[in-house]
Amino acid sequence: MRVAVLGAKGKVGATMVDAVRDAADLELSAEIDAGDPLTVLTDSGTEAVIDFTHPDVVMDNLKFLIDNGIHAVVGTTGFTDARIAQVEQWLSARPDAAVLIAPNFAIGAVLTMHFARQAARHFESVEVIELHHPHKADAPSGTAVRTARLIAEARKGMPPNPDATSTGIEGARGADVDGVPVHSIRLAGLVAHQEVLFGTQGETLTIRHDSLDRTSFVPGVLLGVRKVGQRPGLTVGIEPLLDLS
Amino acid sequence: MRVAVLGAKGKVGATMVDAVRDAADLELSAEIDAGDPLTVLTDSGTEAVIDFTHPDVVMDNLKFLIDNGIHAVVGTTGFTDARIAQVEQWLSARPDAAVLIAPNFAIGAVLTMHFARQAARHFESVEVIELHHPHKADAPSGTAVRTARLIAEARKGMPPNPDATSTGIEGARGADVDGVPVHSIRLAGLVAHQEVLFGTQGETLTIRHDSLDRTSFVPGVLLGVRKVGQRPGLTVGIEPLLDLS
Amino acid sequence: MRVAVLGAKGKVGATMVDAVRDAADLELSAEIDAGDPLTVLTDSGTEAVIDFTHPDVVMDNLKFLIDNGIHAVVGTTGFTDARIAQVEQWLSARPDAAVLIAPNFAIGAVLTMHFARQAARHFESVEVIELHHPHKADAPSGTAVRTARLIAEARKGMPPNPDATSTGIEGARGADVDGVPVHSIRLAGLVAHQEVLFGTQGETLTIRHDSLDRTSFVPGVLLGVRKVGQRPGLTVGIEPLLDLS
Amino acid sequence: MRVAVLGAKGKVGATMVDAVRDAADLELSAEIDAGDPLTVLTDSGTEAVIDFTHPDVVMDNLKFLIDNGIHAVVGTTGFTDARIAQVEQWLSARPDAAVLIAPNFAIGAVLTMHFARQAARHFESVEVIELHHPHKADAPSGTAVRTARLIAEARKGMPPNPDATSTGIEGARGADVDGVPVHSIRLAGLVAHQEVLFGTQGETLTIRHDSLDRTSFVPGVLLGVRKVGQRPGLTVGIEPLLDLS
Repeated sequence: MRVAVLGAKGKVGATMVDAVRDAADLELSAEIDAGDPLTVLTDSGTEAVIDFTHPDVVMDNLKFLIDNGIHAVVGTTGFTDARIAQVEQWLSARPDAAVLIAPNFAIGAVLTMHFARQAARHFESVEVIELHHPHKADAPSGTAVRTARLIAEARKGMPPNPDATSTGIEGARGADVDGVPVHSIRLAGLVAHQEVLFGTQGETLTIRHDSLDRTSFVPGVLLGVRKVGQRPGLTVGIEPLLDLS
Repeated sequence: MRVAVLGAKGKVGATMVDAVRDAADLELSAEIDAGDPLTVLTDSGTEAVIDFTHPDVVMDNLKFLIDNGIHAVVGTTGFTDARIAQVEQWLSARPDAAVLIAPNFAIGAVLTMHFARQAARHFESVEVIELHHPHKADAPSGTAVRTARLIAEARKGMPPNPDATSTGIEGARGADVDGVPVHSIRLAGLVAHQEVLFGTQGETLTIRHDSLDRTSFVPGVLLGVRKVGQRPGLTVGIEPLLDLS
Repeated sequence: MRVAVLGAKGKVGATMVDAVRDAADLELSAEIDAGDPLTVLTDSGTEAVIDFTHPDVVMDNLKFLIDNGIHAVVGTTGFTDARIAQVEQWLSARPDAAVLIAPNFAIGAVLTMHFARQAARHFESVEVIELHHPHKADAPSGTAVRTARLIAEARKGMPPNPDATSTGIEGARGADVDGVPVHSIRLAGLVAHQEVLFGTQGETLTIRHDSLDRTSFVPGVLLGVRKVGQRPGLTVGIEPLLDLS
Repeated sequence: MRVAVLGAKGKVGATMVDAVRDAADLELSAEIDAGDPLTVLTDSGTEAVIDFTHPDVVMDNLKFLIDNGIHAVVGTTGFTDARIAQVEQWLSARPDAAVLIAPNFAIGAVLTMHFARQAARHFESVEVIELHHPHKADAPSGTAVRTARLIAEARKGMPPNPDATSTGIEGARGADVDGVPVHSIRLAGLVAHQEVLFGTQGETLTIRHDSLDRTSFVPGVLLGVRKVGQRPGLTVGIEPLLDLS
């Protein structure tokens, strides 16, 4: 498959250029950055594009790609409901084009959420611990909050976590996210890690995701490139590509 | 629901007697052990039975239960293909009766296998570590071997784990179970624990199950009792009751 | 060595009776409970006593033991400074007698604190996570608070943990114990567990202690029985018996 | 303190140049690489030198440094007993000079070994798990073998690990290093990690070291620079600098 990278000089884009070059089944058809004409894509016979650019230009990119029947795998941020609706409208006119937009390409993070939702109703107790480097501004992390909310939604109608705590020090039991306690560790030397702990009588189940470097999005993007063509229209998130059942 | 326990004086059966008594939505209708007549079940209006007895008597128990339309949740071992076929034949004559036979009622263990199979194709590498008390005779554990085989089956057609090991000490890389390395730890103080480790570029995903005492089968048996009636006929294993998707 | 148990009919005492019986190098000389005369100890040639009794009687026990030159290993609680001073005064008159009083006989817990104190100055960051069954009333656990205080004391004069958190949900960053964040997990299925996490540039060190059943005090008490005679006078805590250096 | 880096253009040396520049209490006095005259060190008033060069030149460097009373912190490899003896002889003529030679500057790795040795005699069972990226050629890792040997030495005279394993698959119980089982995991996404697991009745203690990037040696080298002057003569390994007791 002939694959181009939009935003090829950015940090993430440059990593994707290398990744496409290293993949035996993919061919790098073009590297495009600000100022380059998009017609390079059609001229080079590009079949799929990886877009890590900027909210200011990504909609123009998608219009061009859809019009020309080139598949798109998009990691650029800023997709409001209005933008999503616009993309779907463009796609309705080109039923052969396929677009994948994902907020998180780390397969391990997506599987962690999927498994957490599946396990949620089968245990009395659940808590989330997320561990990050100390330069992080928000606590809990956005991923931990999203994970806790998915779990809370799946547990609707169940009794709350059993908890006999009656005395203590403020903060010990973590942040309350829709009834799921979330604990944030900030430690020099760490990168980005998350544990979901489930417990019931006599047993516990722990799902742990470790991101050990900043390239953990690569396998998910390549998976998107390989599979996006099998799903014409718009796909949001990589979960539908993971053949989960 | 009126629930009886067969094998009520055995260690596991006695635990189930207590568990049924403690469950607000279940009523203990009878405690039966060797020598007691099965008619106690029909006399007491029993709707479902928990059977932790012995391979020598379990088939007679099931014949009686199916004939009388009483649901059965069975943890007794020794079910060969021939026995399974016999049970199915009996059930075909009583389409309202439901039987659940499960080799493992620990929900966490069953979910671990389910998640491991779902994750199997999305990571380059996978290994299994199981950790048990030092009185265990087999290494690896039966659960670890079964888990590794499920993973290996799911990975068919994928390249093997990358591994540049060229020098070393025998045994360091574990047991080879269909291409999945399995490592067995035996440590005083442990009970029964298992980790499945997956890894790809920049990220790892770990699924860990800890059985901390011998009662970890209880929630799975109670789940079986509550749901078996919704699945007339034979169900093998509790996985179909877990609403996984 | 001839060893007696005081409080032999209590839950802990009964466990110690079994443990002494099972130990090849120890001989059970007497089992004593409320109402039994202490002279059984001298009549039976007892060399060392394990005392898990009650604050109301433990001082009388110790007076008798010291007067008769019988070594004592004491897990009974309630030792105020005044009581400690009294025991030391009695011991000054019998320089051959030895008494060990310990608030915690779990060797793993004591080593965790010892290692945490040794590591404390060598990492930029430190946090404590303690995980317990949901019936626990206090959060954080007493052991976690003690551990955090020992670490904080060892870190005096060092800069605080780096932490850029500027937005978040209350409680996410845990309880503040003298500058050390402590996080309390309460989960069905757990027993008593604690992790101390240290981090600096590019590396982390984690010390984890798991108490998986209520008998984890046994090895520490037996160690006390075997070694107390080598330390005439009063010893508080089992740390001095662990040959740490 | 005025600090120079020898081997300043090598990968490790360049990292050390940056680290010295970033340290508020250190001043970078010189960056020296192959071809530069060592007299730059004396001309620049250098007080301590970090040497990550090559076995071919490190002895000449040390001769110059000792002769000029400049302290040395050395990560270069290849120190045979004969070389160590030579360095000690040079130092005997200059009692004010101090040299620190260390095979491993990762503080977490050194503490892991120290703690493992201290814990070794207090648990019935011990095993080592090391986990690395799949490009590693040796299994077990050198660090794991060294750790296991230190533990085995500390356990001399104790009974072996209890282990009832009677049937199984070859390799499941790991490599035998002086009686300590060592298990090697090789997983894409990992960097360098090690766990030492101890267990006794009812409790386990785990010491885990994670090296998450290649700069984990930096804090140990800087510690060496700051403390080497307090230990005139030769020091091997950073353990003596860690104020352990």
